[in-house]
Amino acid sequence: MTSRSIHLALIQSQVFATPAENIQYLSEQIASATTNGANLILLQELHNTPYFCIEENPACFDLAETIPGPSTEVFSKLANEHGVVIVASLFEKRTGGLYHNTAVVFENDGSIAGKYRKMHIPDDPGFYEKYYFTPGDLGFTPIQTSVGKLGVLVCWDQWFPEAARLMALAGAEILLYPTAIGWDPQDTKKEQARQLDAWITIQRSHAIANGIAVASCNRIGSESVADMTSTFWGNSFICGPQGEFLARASSDNNEILSASIAPEKTEQVRRIWPYLRDRRIDAYGDLTRRYIDN
Amino acid sequence: MTSRSIHLALIQSQVFATPAENIQYLSEQIASATTNGANLILLQELHNTPYFCIEENPACFDLAETIPGPSTEVFSKLANEHGVVIVASLFEKRTGGLYHNTAVVFENDGSIAGKYRKMHIPDDPGFYEKYYFTPGDLGFTPIQTSVGKLGVLVCWDQWFPEAARLMALAGAEILLYPTAIGWDPQDTKKEQARQLDAWITIQRSHAIANGIAVASCNRIGSESVADMTSTFWGNSFICGPQGEFLARASSDNNEILSASIAPEKTEQVRRIWPYLRDRRIDAYGDLTRRYIDN
Repeated sequence: MTSRSIHLALIQSQVFATPAENIQYLSEQIASATTNGANLILLQELHNTPYFCIEENPACFDLAETIPGPSTEVFSKLANEHGVVIVASLFEKRTGGLYHNTAVVFENDGSIAGKYRKMHIPDDPGFYEKYYFTPGDLGFTPIQTSVGKLGVLVCWDQWFPEAARLMALAGAEILLYPTAIGWDPQDTKKEQARQLDAWITIQRSHAIANGIAVASCNRIGSESVADMTSTFWGNSFICGPQGEFLARASSDNNEILSASIAPEKTEQVRRIWPYLRDRRIDAYGDLTRRYIDN
Repeated sequence: MTSRSIHLALIQSQVFATPAENIQYLSEQIASATTNGANLILLQELHNTPYFCIEENPACFDLAETIPGPSTEVFSKLANEHGVVIVASLFEKRTGGLYHNTAVVFENDGSIAGKYRKMHIPDDPGFYEKYYFTPGDLGFTPIQTSVGKLGVLVCWDQWFPEAARLMALAGAEILLYPTAIGWDPQDTKKEQARQLDAWITIQRSHAIANGIAVASCNRIGSESVADMTSTFWGNSFICGPQGEFLARASSDNNEILSASIAPEKTEQVRRIWPYLRDRRIDAYGDLTRRYIDN
């Protein structure tokens, strides 16, 4: 893809209470981003609703929908209307009692280019995702689109170098993370700073290890259920194949964050840092073990 | 190891022209570091000599020595004399025509606790290591010592998340990188800054991904052969299991860099970030492939 450029826009925002309001807001932002030249739009994780995983509530399964379904119809239309590739993030109902956290990629003609079901599922206080989402079963497979081969991963996946590597080995030209991550307001400011910095650092490291650009789109705002509050930390960013920042968002503003990415930069960077040449695949077999304690 | 602490010291320095001078200097620095409380010392890569891999020169194989051999005898004595664990980095002659870039760990009684042969071997202009070093054949095996289980890796290994992960899965409590990395003075300042930042970022990411401390000891100074010059960038550092900096060195000073590490912090960090719980080992099989292009 030597002559193509990816003009990427991320839509970082607080969520509204209802899917209708969120979709209305996102429609306006998508229109604005494409007017400004975007050919690829990355939305944040589960952008249609508040972060319902803050509690374990059987009623929240009502928020799920099939793929294709009502939401894919909306984003299909938006992709086609604006001629832009869109990476959306939906709560997928596969059948009764079987749900996934699924990213859907829409081609710029409105067709569904592919989907990715979140492979690594977190579970900790306020992020009860193992209750809602069955771990993905589509593997780490990039999705081919008119703007390039997209390595779409979701949130918790970002902490696992294996996921990024497998996407790169399968030909991903960029890694895209819809995400919803925040602070526990009860943690100290120092701990909060360490967590945010770690989150940025590990994602930049995937760019470096693989010589490809990385973008992460996170929500902002505090959301509470009962006595549990999460303050989503924003800080969406786009970095190039050496991990260098191309664009960074704030921790508390609704923003469209954009940058242009030249996929041919990957070839240049991999010539000076040829890690793919030197991987010791003969010695990596134990990566498929849980722990090496014999 | 709930009640033990690692008091780590790194010796960052310019090298002298001869092994005798370097060993004399390191002896003094090791004495000084242990006087100040170090129980573990990490030396930089190939600390006994200038970075001879800057050229391909058959005469440089004369610098290699057996393990055990003259240098291990010296560092054995130093470890025993000062009662300190030492991680040294030697040019190993295994037999005629077979050489490795090998880290040797000395127990604080002077015995050899174990060795690690650099698994990933770089080769690019001014860093002609594939000419000198056969890739290691001891795997990614931590070395048990009185201060903890040490995940010793060497330089180029630091760019491979697989190496760090395998050490962690095998029980490493800390990752230690002797290294010799520098700038090409002909690169722009911006490119030099990107490279240094990438080098720090990827190593910090190994701490984050695995919840263990990481330390990297690099040389300083410019070294030239014919028209090839490398300016080693120093910037040795120690970070904790969230990737947070505990100590950082300059780019151009001889320094002893030290920090105390509490291995029980790993347990705390892995409780909030339980990546080992969630690795998708069922889906990682392709990590042993060169490229997924069928």
